[in-house]
Amino acid sequence: MESFIEVPLDSDFPLENLPWGVFEAPGPAGPQVHVGVALGQHVISATELQLCSIVVPVPVHTRVQGRLNEFMAAGRPAWRAARSTLQRLLNASEGELRDNSELMSRVVHKQADVTMLLPAQIGDYTDFYASRQHATRVGSMFRGPANALNPNWLHLPVGYHGRSSSVVPSGAPVRRPSSAVSSSSPPPRPVVAPSTQVDFELEVAAFIGPGNTLGEAIPVESAWEHVFGLVLMNDWSARDIQKWEYVPLGPFCGKNWATQISPWVVTSEALEPFKCRPPAKQAGDPDVLPYLQEAMPYTYDVNLAVDITPPGVDRATTVTRSNLKHLYWSFAQMIAHHTVGGCNLRPGDLLGSGTISGDEADSSGCLLELTHASRDEIVTEASTGVVRRRYLEDGDVVTLRGWCGGDGVPCRRIGFGRCSGELLPCQP
Amino acid sequence: MESFIEVPLDSDFPLENLPWGVFEAPGPAGPQVHVGVALGQHVISATELQLCSIVVPVPVHTRVQGRLNEFMAAGRPAWRAARSTLQRLLNASEGELRDNSELMSRVVHKQADVTMLLPAQIGDYTDFYASRQHATRVGSMFRGPANALNPNWLHLPVGYHGRSSSVVPSGAPVRRPSSAVSSSSPPPRPVVAPSTQVDFELEVAAFIGPGNTLGEAIPVESAWEHVFGLVLMNDWSARDIQKWEYVPLGPFCGKNWATQISPWVVTSEALEPFKCRPPAKQAGDPDVLPYLQEAMPYTYDVNLAVDITPPGVDRATTVTRSNLKHLYWSFAQMIAHHTVGGCNLRPGDLLGSGTISGDEADSSGCLLELTHASRDEIVTEASTGVVRRRYLEDGDVVTLRGWCGGDGVPCRRIGFGRCSGELLPCQP
Ligand SMILES: [Ca+2]
Ligand SMILES: [Ca+2]
Ligand SMILES: [Mg+2]
Ligand SMILES: [Mg+2]
Ligand code: NI
Repeated sequence: MESFIEVPLDSDFPLENLPWGVFEAPGPAGPQVHVGVALGQHVISATELQLCSIVVPVPVHTRVQGRLNEFMAAGRPAWRAARSTLQRLLNASEGELRDNSELMSRVVHKQADVTMLLPAQIGDYTDFYASRQHATRVGSMFRGPANALNPNWLHLPVGYHGRSSSVVPSGAPVRRPSSAVSSSSPPPRPVVAPSTQVDFELEVAAFIGPGNTLGEAIPVESAWEHVFGLVLMNDWSARDIQKWEYVPLGPFCGKNWATQISPWVVTSEALEPFKCRPPAKQAGDPDVLPYLQEAMPYTYDVNLAVDITPPGVDRATTVTRSNLKHLYWSFAQMIAHHTVGGCNLRPGDLLGSGTISGDEADSSGCLLELTHASRDEIVTEASTGVVRRRYLEDGDVVTLRGWCGGDGVPCRRIGFGRCSGELLPCQP
Repeated sequence: MESFIEVPLDSDFPLENLPWGVFEAPGPAGPQVHVGVALGQHVISATELQLCSIVVPVPVHTRVQGRLNEFMAAGRPAWRAARSTLQRLLNASEGELRDNSELMSRVVHKQADVTMLLPAQIGDYTDFYASRQHATRVGSMFRGPANALNPNWLHLPVGYHGRSSSVVPSGAPVRRPSSAVSSSSPPPRPVVAPSTQVDFELEVAAFIGPGNTLGEAIPVESAWEHVFGLVLMNDWSARDIQKWEYVPLGPFCGKNWATQISPWVVTSEALEPFKCRPPAKQAGDPDVLPYLQEAMPYTYDVNLAVDITPPGVDRATTVTRSNLKHLYWSFAQMIAHHTVGGCNLRPGDLLGSGTISGDEADSSGCLLELTHASRDEIVTEASTGVVRRRYLEDGDVVTLRGWCGGDGVPCRRIGFGRCSGELLPCQP
């Protein structure tokens, strides 16, 4: 499938991908907000196509409000129809858009010329804790290997309600928080200080499609139908703040200062060729409860990596590699669990997976794990020399990457783009 | 201060109150959404007053969208201006509205003829745990009196992010949730079952006004300026679900199936005469950290009560009485803590106080406390006989009431109206 718009071979965004996003582009009367898709190094405005009566079946509210909530609500038939319209219009063999230079100038922008915004108004953001490897290694550090997993962990996807106001897109600066942390000696005497344990968390998050009515659960068998698509998510975390505050009601100031997502939502349609089986059960694992059992469970094979670029350093170092497929709990199971008691999910809600760690120590999804809670260091390398880290330092740029396939032509990579943020010093 | 609209002596809504709300009223072209205030047994549409060019300074978006977020964002000068305009227009001595019968018919509706909606689009809902009496008694039950309060409790207002999608107004039916609960014998083998431990929680919640920019904290000294007003809140809770799920990330399915609020937001201006000092420190209590210290700390003296009406019973029984002034942490401190690390609060966000218990056992704000985790029973009395409860049963109606003053004429009561909901049986 080739477009008349050039797509570099190593692009995250071939015509098979077409992830959805919201962007501000220059217009004749000043900057204007569009909804649209990414293609190669360009963006395609669905808003402009509709205004020109080329029917991309995106609901009117989506165009007007400059966010994807209404489109997410429309469900899979609408998503498929929009995708196939766009794939036809953008195809190398199709002249309707290609040969209309006036239309092209309004519809096609370079990614370098637009500013990416959040894809949706996020009504509620929930974060899970779905990686067995992560929960086991973190639990081992704090409670020892015998009690690594809490009694509920293998029975339900543990999660908590996060803070939607501080979800920011890639590129937004992120500021080191200052809050109450406890000194180590008992009795605990807290002080207010900038966090010295700022960490990233490598996650994937799902944007919810139609969702459910309050009081009516979503069965696990239809739960994937409520996933509009996936993004990368860095759940920035301040471990020292979190540690002091989290008993008994969970993370609060340790997590609510920034949650960063990649701006392009890779759709379930684009991910379809990369469906795979979830990990096998281990001996002794309990059967999950019926509301979490799928006849044909699946997830997606999405490669993940985290790069760190310390300040003044001329290149990024990949500090961990993982994969979405390692998760013990799938997004379908998270959705079924979230709604089992009647809680309603709304279009545009965001569900984070929790830190995604692989089997190896160097496939851990956060520094807490990678350094064994600061026992070790990670090393970044550049021509300017070696830089070591236990936790993040001011000026560090953290970049999450994700991609499916791409191991050879003609197999194009379905990429997620980047979720990138620089850690700024604490507010003076 | 008297209005030409009759206000019964025992009304929650004299001219001194004028709480804000959003309601759907019959109109010439079908039901229409208004913003406005309550007065006696009537509602006054600020939307209609503005359409008639009688300037109530409510931002245009508030009228158009039928929610108060923009008005909340406008801040105290705008709130005061709207209040004084309305108090003038509605005054017994003022003819502009009173003598215009056509205008009256559009602006004034009976409360019985309108449907109350949520006052705002709630971007994020946070629930705190600010009652020392509650935290102490619950902690004692589970960890013994010596360890009743967790080490962090006296140092910071513990809170968690709640679920905004399932915040519903008074009158909305509430459905008993079914979810995973653990049987008592170890090893824990969970089952999916309707919760048998459905509880109410008597809370007061603040609607946030202007709020703050991500990365910039709200100092405690100006935090009350960000409280638009207060409502009653029943944080419906399923104790058995909560108990099994909440370690280590906090309440989830135990809480996210319904949070119910009273629909009229009682403003800081109306509460002004009922300011009072917070409780005195106890011997040995630590100083709170500087970011939580106010020069002149205050809260409000708001009487609270919870009534239960079992099904088929002809009257309500008041099962507990408490008061907002008992809280150890004030809303100003909750706001300062919420934002200390840079988390942004947005206009229309909702901050719950946590269960508000008084000093006496019969002033406890939830059944878990009142019955000592089902050791005892509470008794409701009616002409049809006595009904006993450990937890709530299907068909029980739970009603929260709140009021300031009203101990005698001419001291009018500033009331909150009611937060009332019936517990429906679990979805079949
Ligand atoms: Ca996380
Ligand atoms: Ca509560
Ligand atoms: Mg976060
Ligand atoms: Mg609740
Ligand atoms: Ni009347």
